[in-house]
Amino acid sequence: MALLARARQLESEGRSIVHMEIGEPDFETPAPVIDAGIQALRSGQTRYTPAAGLPALREAIAAHYRGEFNVAIDPARVFVTPGASGALQLATAVLVEEGSEVLMADPGYPCNRNFVHLLGGIPVSVPVGCEQDYQLNAGLLEQYWSERTVAALLATPSNPTGTTLSETALSGLLSSAQACGGRLIVDEIYQSLYYGARPHTALGLGDDMFVINSFSKYFGMTGWRLGWLVAPTEYLDSLDMLAQNLFLSASTPAQYAALAALEPGTREILEARRAEFQARRDYLMPALRSIGFRIDNEPAGAFYLYADCSQFTDDSYAFSHDLLETAGVAVTPGIYFGSFRAAQHVRFAYTTSLDQLRLGVERIAGFVRAH
Amino acid sequence: MALLARARQLESEGRSIVHMEIGEPDFETPAPVIDAGIQALRSGQTRYTPAAGLPALREAIAAHYRGEFNVAIDPARVFVTPGASGALQLATAVLVEEGSEVLMADPGYPCNRNFVHLLGGIPVSVPVGCEQDYQLNAGLLEQYWSERTVAALLATPSNPTGTTLSETALSGLLSSAQACGGRLIVDEIYQSLYYGARPHTALGLGDDMFVINSFSKYFGMTGWRLGWLVAPTEYLDSLDMLAQNLFLSASTPAQYAALAALEPGTREILEARRAEFQARRDYLMPALRSIGFRIDNEPAGAFYLYADCSQFTDDSYAFSHDLLETAGVAVTPGIYFGSFRAAQHVRFAYTTSLDQLRLGVERIAGFVRAH
Repeated sequence: MALLARARQLESEGRSIVHMEIGEPDFETPAPVIDAGIQALRSGQTRYTPAAGLPALREAIAAHYRGEFNVAIDPARVFVTPGASGALQLATAVLVEEGSEVLMADPGYPCNRNFVHLLGGIPVSVPVGCEQDYQLNAGLLEQYWSERTVAALLATPSNPTGTTLSETALSGLLSSAQACGGRLIVDEIYQSLYYGARPHTALGLGDDMFVINSFSKYFGMTGWRLGWLVAPTEYLDSLDMLAQNLFLSASTPAQYAALAALEPGTREILEARRAEFQARRDYLMPALRSIGFRIDNEPAGAFYLYADCSQFTDDSYAFSHDLLETAGVAVTPGIYFGSFRAAQHVRFAYTTSLDQLRLGVERIAGFVRAH
Repeated sequence: MALLARARQLESEGRSIVHMEIGEPDFETPAPVIDAGIQALRSGQTRYTPAAGLPALREAIAAHYRGEFNVAIDPARVFVTPGASGALQLATAVLVEEGSEVLMADPGYPCNRNFVHLLGGIPVSVPVGCEQDYQLNAGLLEQYWSERTVAALLATPSNPTGTTLSETALSGLLSSAQACGGRLIVDEIYQSLYYGARPHTALGLGDDMFVINSFSKYFGMTGWRLGWLVAPTEYLDSLDMLAQNLFLSASTPAQYAALAALEPGTREILEARRAEFQARRDYLMPALRSIGFRIDNEPAGAFYLYADCSQFTDDSYAFSHDLLETAGVAVTPGIYFGSFRAAQHVRFAYTTSLDQLRLGVERIAGFVRAH
């Protein structure tokens, strides 16, 4: 992204930049996970694992669903992947053929489109606004579904909006997708970063969907590149073959480290971080609103606020650019996430300290007053 | 692979199995590399790197080409990837569109076909036998090139045959590809595992090709999942975007560890291992020949022997199966690598100790006598 590069450049020239554009937690990997990684390296765990992942990790992930959500998952349905990117690649690769359509929300995570594109498929953007809580719903799914549609891709919580799908909404989407003869792919990578009601998992609604998750965001393991996919039983053989072909296997030291990420001792550290994210959100949301940004949908998860900036501009890209150059605050313009009302929105990430967020808000306030 | 699974199953039932099917060195990651990985974890190097890789590692890889081959590479042309698989995925993704053809040798590494397939392209297998040293040549390239062909994929040394392309042969292939208006993708992942003349790199012939390499095989880092791609300058922007979309970045601890893989201290360890591989090859090749396997092309690299077993069978799959069940030796039947004369060939990997290889040869000798 040009804006991120420009922010780094300004910083290297000595400018103070408040980073509210970064989609990566500012916390390091928790110590028990680091220790487990070191232990794995010391004991020579450096060879390929089976393509679907270490059996112990697949079982630990299944146990995680049992413990957190009271949902029983056969470990054979769990594929450990190089990041959630790998999981998304596997899911789309078994579903998408030349000309297949995949529905996805606009705004949404921009890479999603490209996975479908690369496979010769057609990503179909479904415009969703605050009226739809920035999420697909059963009615939209049916409206946009065509003969060529094979799947709908959901994200709960969503990037860039942080909004979630209720169990009822998800259940409606599942019924609609099934009635249409297609599949849901549900991205739950921000699942454990919630700031209200305890999250659920789409897997609680049945086995007939692809669910993507990751050790990156909540577990603080971004650079290790480790995620997972839970898939319907009928796809397991194809997925195993694909994983073998595309990746051979996910990183072995990372897989051993991830075993520690799922242990209770690590959980305490991660929950303290979640509380810190919540404190940031609870500060940032009213602060931005008081300046004049509109955030109609209280985000229930992730670490993003997707704010309507139409009070200040009808070109959020130029606005973001000016905000960076003039005030030294980096945010992400809506165009990065799609085209629907993109020029009226910017994304704020609260992946920096409260002090930095306060400084950022102060600078933004000054900037919009002068704008 | 069913055969590998069966070998593991027999082993778990208490059978002694000699593994000559495994495409992974039996050596652990060298200690200095492990230490560097541990150091990276201790110092909190666990976040995303730039999509193309750590600048220091890209520079170290460029320096590796300068030091080893006296070839100057702009570090901006180096993409650090999740294994060579990631590099192959990037290269094919920028070249292949729906209906594009990519030429590749049969026998060859089986995953290659699938990368092209997934992108909607058509992998075109070019039958090559010992007459062609199991490699494409300029004549074959021109013969199989069509209007839809965008690239030819070469591997030197090749898996499964271990044969290499001379600079002259490679130069002829490059000229032909250029004359046809296409590109070469050159897989050099076994480059530093050579048992004769010092290797060259295709990059010595110019900048107009994609070269794939890996920290897996020679550097002993299979499970870390780290490789690289050197690409023509005109593709760098597209590749950066693709890498961002497909992977976000390669494993961060692995990238720091890889810096140590390229240092002189590690080199000594790796060269000792290369000598061990050579000793194994020098034992295994005549031993198999003396039993009755034909290996007409002395493999110059990698850790494979591709042997004609037609003296014993016209069905190398059944032969491999029986050899495993009856004699407890696992080898890979030719069908895994393509279809051309596949039923007359098996691949032996010398990724196990000399003692195990001797035991394997003894068992095979007994098996073929009784066969």
